[in-house]
Order: sequence, then C-alpha cells, then structure tokens
Amino acid sequence: MLILRRFYSSSKRIAHITKSHKPGDSLSLQGWIQNVRRLKNNTFLDISDGSTSNRFQVVVPRTPENQHLAPGSVISAAGQIQVAPNGSFELHADRVEMLADGHLQEGYPFSPKQKHPPEYVREHLHLRSRVSYIAAQLRVRHKAQKAIHDYMDELDFVQINTPLLTTNDCEGAGEVFRVQPDSAALLKQMERPNVPAEQSYFDDKVFLSVSGQLHLEAMSYGLGNTYTFAPAFRAENSKSPLHLAEFYMFEAELAHLEELEKLARFIEQLIKSITNRLLETSSEDLHFCQRNANTTSDLAWLQVPWIIMSYDEALKVLQDNKDSLKTPISLTEGFSKDQELFLVSHCAAPVFVVDWPTQQKPFYMKVSRSNPSVVHALDLLMPSVGELCGGSLRESDAEMLRSHPQLPKNLSWYVDLRKYGGVPTGGFGMGFERYLQLVTGVKNIRDVIPFPRYPHSCKM
Amino acid sequence: MLILRRFYSSSKRIAHITKSHKPGDSLSLQGWIQNVRRLKNNTFLDISDGSTSNRFQVVVPRTPENQHLAPGSVISAAGQIQVAPNGSFELHADRVEMLADGHLQEGYPFSPKQKHPPEYVREHLHLRSRVSYIAAQLRVRHKAQKAIHDYMDELDFVQINTPLLTTNDCEGAGEVFRVQPDSAALLKQMERPNVPAEQSYFDDKVFLSVSGQLHLEAMSYGLGNTYTFAPAFRAENSKSPLHLAEFYMFEAELAHLEELEKLARFIEQLIKSITNRLLETSSEDLHFCQRNANTTSDLAWLQVPWIIMSYDEALKVLQDNKDSLKTPISLTEGFSKDQELFLVSHCAAPVFVVDWPTQQKPFYMKVSRSNPSVVHALDLLMPSVGELCGGSLRESDAEMLRSHPQLPKNLSWYVDLRKYGGVPTGGFGMGFERYLQLVTGVKNIRDVIPFPRYPHSCKM
Repeated sequence: MLILRRFYSSSKRIAHITKSHKPGDSLSLQGWIQNVRRLKNNTFLDISDGSTSNRFQVVVPRTPENQHLAPGSVISAAGQIQVAPNGSFELHADRVEMLADGHLQEGYPFSPKQKHPPEYVREHLHLRSRVSYIAAQLRVRHKAQKAIHDYMDELDFVQINTPLLTTNDCEGAGEVFRVQPDSAALLKQMERPNVPAEQSYFDDKVFLSVSGQLHLEAMSYGLGNTYTFAPAFRAENSKSPLHLAEFYMFEAELAHLEELEKLARFIEQLIKSITNRLLETSSEDLHFCQRNANTTSDLAWLQVPWIIMSYDEALKVLQDNKDSLKTPISLTEGFSKDQELFLVSHCAAPVFVVDWPTQQKPFYMKVSRSNPSVVHALDLLMPSVGELCGGSLRESDAEMLRSHPQLPKNLSWYVDLRKYGGVPTGGFGMGFERYLQLVTGVKNIRDVIPFPRYPHSCKM
Repeated sequence: MLILRRFYSSSKRIAHITKSHKPGDSLSLQGWIQNVRRLKNNTFLDISDGSTSNRFQVVVPRTPENQHLAPGSVISAAGQIQVAPNGSFELHADRVEMLADGHLQEGYPFSPKQKHPPEYVREHLHLRSRVSYIAAQLRVRHKAQKAIHDYMDELDFVQINTPLLTTNDCEGAGEVFRVQPDSAALLKQMERPNVPAEQSYFDDKVFLSVSGQLHLEAMSYGLGNTYTFAPAFRAENSKSPLHLAEFYMFEAELAHLEELEKLARFIEQLIKSITNRLLETSSEDLHFCQRNANTTSDLAWLQVPWIIMSYDEALKVLQDNKDSLKTPISLTEGFSKDQELFLVSHCAAPVFVVDWPTQQKPFYMKVSRSNPSVVHALDLLMPSVGELCGGSLRESDAEMLRSHPQLPKNLSWYVDLRKYGGVPTGGFGMGFERYLQLVTGVKNIRDVIPFPRYPHSCKM
C-alpha cells in the first residue's frame, strides 16, 4: 500500500501536510490559487486542492516570472515546509509552475472572497465542487457512506445491489417514474404479440425503484442480514427543502428479528456509531459545513439514550400541547414535521414512535397478534429534520399478507417468500440526504447531493 | 463494537463458529435445514444460514418431537460444539425449536440434493438466494465492493454519487432509456409553455445514465481524485452472456495525470490489490463459485506483470496470426472478443492496448500532440472476459473539444470546465459484473447480479 501510494502520488495533498510532515520537509503540491496577496518581497498564495476545507499558504519570491499568478490558476509548487507567524504550516516555494491559466475574470461565476447564496451556487452546478463548502459537503458525504459500509460489514451484513428497474406495483400509485428505451426503432424491433409497443423491451411496464426493501427481504431469506445503499426515485411535484426526485436510501433487513424494540436499539447504535466515526474522520469538514450553514450543533443526541414511545403516548403528548403546535392533529395522516419536532423537543432526545395504527401503514408491516388495529412499526424522529428512519417487523404470515386489501398486484412472489421456510424479519430505511442534513445543519437537501434532481431541474 | 454485536446477536452465524469457537463451547444458531438423515439414535441435520458456502451439521437425538424436522424448515438449535469424525465442528443440540415450517414438497422449485442449471434457477429469482452458489456469489459481490471502497478511501479518492437521471446527450444515440413520470395527471399539472407534455417534470428529455465519467470530471476539478460505483443502463437488444440492461460501473478520475502509462499501472495495482483482499476475505466462497462453474482458475494474472502494447503492435500480432483467429480483423471497429483473448493468450498476461486510432474513440479522449491520428486511450484485456476496463487521458483543451465533430449537444458545460483553471485528468471505467465473472469463472453475467435485467426480462 505504502509503495503504491509513493509510486502514484509523488506530490502531497494539503490535508496530509499538517498530519504527516514537519518544518524543514521538502515537498511539492498542486492546487488552485484561491487568493493572491503581493507584498514587497514575497507573493502569498492561498492554495486549495480539494482535500480539505483549510486553505494553505504558499509563499513565493515576488519576481517578474511570478507576476502572472492569479486566482483560478492551477499551479505546482515545490519547496520547504515552514511555520507561519500564526503557527500554521506554509510552503516556502522555490519553484512554481503554472499548470493551467485561470481567467477567473472572464465569466467565472464565483469570487473566492465572496460568500454566494446556495441558490446562486446551484445555478452553476458543473463548477460547484470548486466552492469550499460544497467540497466539504461532498467529502463528508463520502466519509459517511464509508462509515456505513464499514459498520455493516463488521456486523456481517451482506450488501445487496437492489435493482433500480422494477416491475413491482408500487405502494403509492402515481409517484413513480416510468422507463422505456428512447429508440422507437428498438421498440419496434423487439415487438411481441400482446405486449403494448412501448413495453416491448421488458414485456412489461417498468418503473424506477422507490425502495429496495421488498427485494432485500427476498435476499434475507437466503443470506440472513442484508442491506442496500442505493438511489430511489419519487415523481412528486415537491419544492420542499427535504425532498428530491433522485435521492439515496440506506435500508437494512434483519433476519430472525421478532421484537421491534431490538430494531430500535439497533438503529440507535448504528446512527450513533457512524456519526462518531464521521466525527473522527471529518470533524474539520463537518464544522466547516455547520459554520457555513449558520448552525452550531453539538450533536447532543449522541450523548443521550433515545426514547421509545407508543403512537398513543405520542398522540397524547401532542393533544396535551395542542396550543403549542402550528398544525392541527390528524388521526389518519401521521404527524406533521412541526409535530415531530415538538415531540423531539418535548423529550429532549430523539424519539422512536412505535406501534402505529394499522390503517396508517403499508401492507407489509406485521400486525400485532394481541391487537390487530396496531402494527409493529416505528418512525425515528430527530432534531431539525424530523422523521429520519421508518421501519417495521414484516408480516410473516402468507395468508394474512394475501388477504390484505392493500396488497399490490404482481406481488405474489412476495407472498411466496413466506411459504418455504419463512423467517421472521424486520428492517428500516434511512434517507441518506436527511442524515447529512442532520449532521451538517444544511437547510436545503439540494446542497448535500452532488447533482440534485427536482421539479423542473435536471442539469447536466 | 463487541458489546453491540453481543447485544444484537445472541446466537452465532455458522461462518464464525469454526473461526472463533472451540469444542465444548455452548451456543445456539438459526438456519434452514438443507438435508436430514435419520440413523438409529440420532438425526443429522445439514444447516445453512446464508453466512458461508460450507454446510454445518447439527446432531439431535432421534425423538418423536424431532420427527417433524424436514428440509426447508427454519430452526433454532442450542447445544455444544463437538468435533465430528471427519474433523469438522458440529453442534450436538439438546434443544431444537422449529421457527417455520418448510413444506419443501409443495411447489418449492429447488431440491437440496440436486444441482439445477443456472437458467432454471434464474426462473425463480425471488427464491434464488437460497441456492448455495448464488448465495456465495452474492457474498463475493459484497466483499469485492467493500474492497474497492476500502482501497479508494485509503488513497483519498472521494466517492461521488453521480446522477442516474441525466439530460446529457449520450455517446451512442439510441441505446438509452428515457424516463418520465408515470402519472399523466402529474405531467399535466406541471405543464409549462414550450415544453413537450411528456417532458414537463424536468422541462427536458431525461435519460438513465450510461456512465458517470463526465459528471465525475466536473467533481475532480474541485476535489481532486474521485470515483463512482453506480448502476449504468443500456437499452440494447443483446442476449450476450456479457451484457445487461442494468449493470454496475466502477469509474475513477485522477487529477494531475499526464501520462497514460501511470493510469495503466494504477489500474493494474488496483485490480491486483482488490483481488488479493478478496482472496483474504472470501477464498472459500470464491472457490465454491469456481467449482460450481466448472472452472478452476488460479488467477495466475495476479503473479505476473501486465503488458502494455500499442494498438499498432497489437494489430500486427493479430495480422501475423490471422489464421488462428475466428473473426476477421477490422481497421475501424476495434478488436472482437476472440481477438482480445488471443492477445491475452499470446502475451501470457493481461494486456493494456494503448494509443488508439482517434477515429475509433469518443470525443473526450486526449489527442496526441505529436500524432493527432492517435488518442491517449487504453483498453485492458483480461483472460476469459476480454475487455475489462477502458480509460484515457481527457482532452484538456477547450478549443479542441469545442471543435470536435462528435461533441454532443448540451455539453457546453463539459467544455466550460476547462476554461477556469483546467486540470489534466484521466480515468477509467470497469464493468463490475465482468470483474466478478473474471474472478469466479461464472459464464453468464445474469448470475453475478442479484436481479438481472435483460431483453424481455425484468422480474420483481
């Protein structure tokens, strides 16, 4: 590994310089000039290379050859590490090579010295990774995914690439995207009797996945514990800062699970653990993102035990406090975001609301045998984002599933799973972007994903 | 971590028993009965729990209560580890609980004692994970992905979730899937002037991604080295055992890369390293898959240096040996699979074919400044699967890109990237399923992905 690293990168990335170097070391680095200050004898360059939210100073002699160095240019600089008056490391370069001219003056939309509002930055999606807080977000996003994969692998969960193309009839009709080949010639060529022309590629109507859960269950019946981390798609006309047309879902299915409380405790430990790992790998970037979003969350929910509360208890808390709520309480629609946040604030901790009315939840959730009006379902409510996870035990009785009035057509395979050695399973899904909003404090979900897709916008 | 593991799983998975237990240990396990043999005093159960391709034997006293134990049933067994006459561990259970009845006799398509052909197994996709070699494949697939993420993270590459919905005009027209909301009411509701009705969700024609490369490049201009591991989609009418409509691409983009040979050496070290890691984590499953596919590859390519050969040299080798080839040599179409495998066999090593004719390769590849009829592109050819990776240096000159006759419309953003501090980059893409076929020896790509999608088939 070390040999490879040396072989590949003869020069250093800024994030590593403070960690693995000392004053006097000779090294070279490459990066973009963010800012230039010229004093009498020296020129001071703020350099960024995408590896950290901290800028790094390169000091070069003020010579005629260095006169053309300007913001936006890409340079390679070689020299010696020294300690700046403020205590930081800086590079005193004896050699600066211009790799590419910047021309920031000619149409570049971002000024290195100015803080642009996120809506403006989003307009220039292809250049957005050059803005420091977006770069920091993307590094946090990477490390959060890595923490999830590490954690699940350590617990022997098998990652399943659940399909994005599916013929399953979906839960909520009308909120799906349909997929077909763009080429009319191909559709014609593949035509078959009794298949509508536009369906001829797959002989069926095909949608983009809204969740990998049902597929994951099929896999857990052979493999035990499984998980998926994959895009999901919703065709909703929503301008909400919490919704996207293409977003990422982290879903897990646990085999031999018979108690909802165990699922809640699993989720709590998982989220605490990946967040603690993220604080270890990415605290600078996390705090940079938080400062940029004008929030300073100390993530106090890492330190407290999370609350488990039944739907009935939660409803009573809300009814007892209805004068403090902005929205009316519904007995059929679940809680509004305002109500979710009230519950979290009331408990001074994240809250699992469990044991939901059967009529409010989908067909696959396990009905309580002692009280059929209730299903073994949970919602996890967190500060600032509200609902972060939804989960349940799955109905394991083939007959109860088959006779469920909301069972979608085409799902006989799902019922079939239970016939041959059915296993009690349960699981949950977490919106990954909401998790990122939770830890970074970023208000709009469009700024925690590299290429946001939402109504009237699918750039690049 | 250890505390959590104990908390969550009070019983053991079979894969761990031989690793972390010793004779005399008491433990419980849960799994499916694969086979039952009844002798005079004892009943012998072969148990599988999805954690390993090795079956595990549970010995229970032959009592009337145990008479109903049958293949397909799910049990929980508690007892003591002992050493079987063949030297393996087995569990002598004093307590067996039936968790779910199997009913393998009533319509279950697989017989535990019979080896079914892959075409037949594929017909029962929702039950397929219960077949041992499919379960082994899925565990290998998980561990290979894990190895890729670990390796790239160690080298400080940032994983980017490149979008699956894109408005980019794609390289090869006619091979893309188009996406639109299924709901006509939603399309109507979102209608805007001058936008065709079926495009009203995004105000544009939207496709499923065929590659994340161009988006990755945009990110590398801000973050340095990046990679993506994501589904890609091709609407081709191909029945080939090497093609799917939905497959996974691993793509990486390296910043400050100016030599194609460095890219080749990077790819070689990467593939050798992830394969060595896979051999460490998954050798039993790998060999189980190979045996099942009737191949025994010792992956000899791990031990030899890989060859770099120019397109002209490769062409000469083929021309000198044209009597040994099954397909005619084309000067405009690249090599056929037969020719690719001939080159690999001729060199007795994997081969990077570099410096391709400009006319055979896409617009984004860097044209040689000394010989404009050649681009800095590479194809990596491997045993058994042929082409595994394609890569190139990227054209970094905005004007050369802009004037390229094959530059797709809508890609002004891609040209624009080069204007403001352009960086020399290069990268490659690897078909993940082909990699799995390479290491497991599985003939048909439909058997290395959990839910294969191909012409006339999109089950579940």
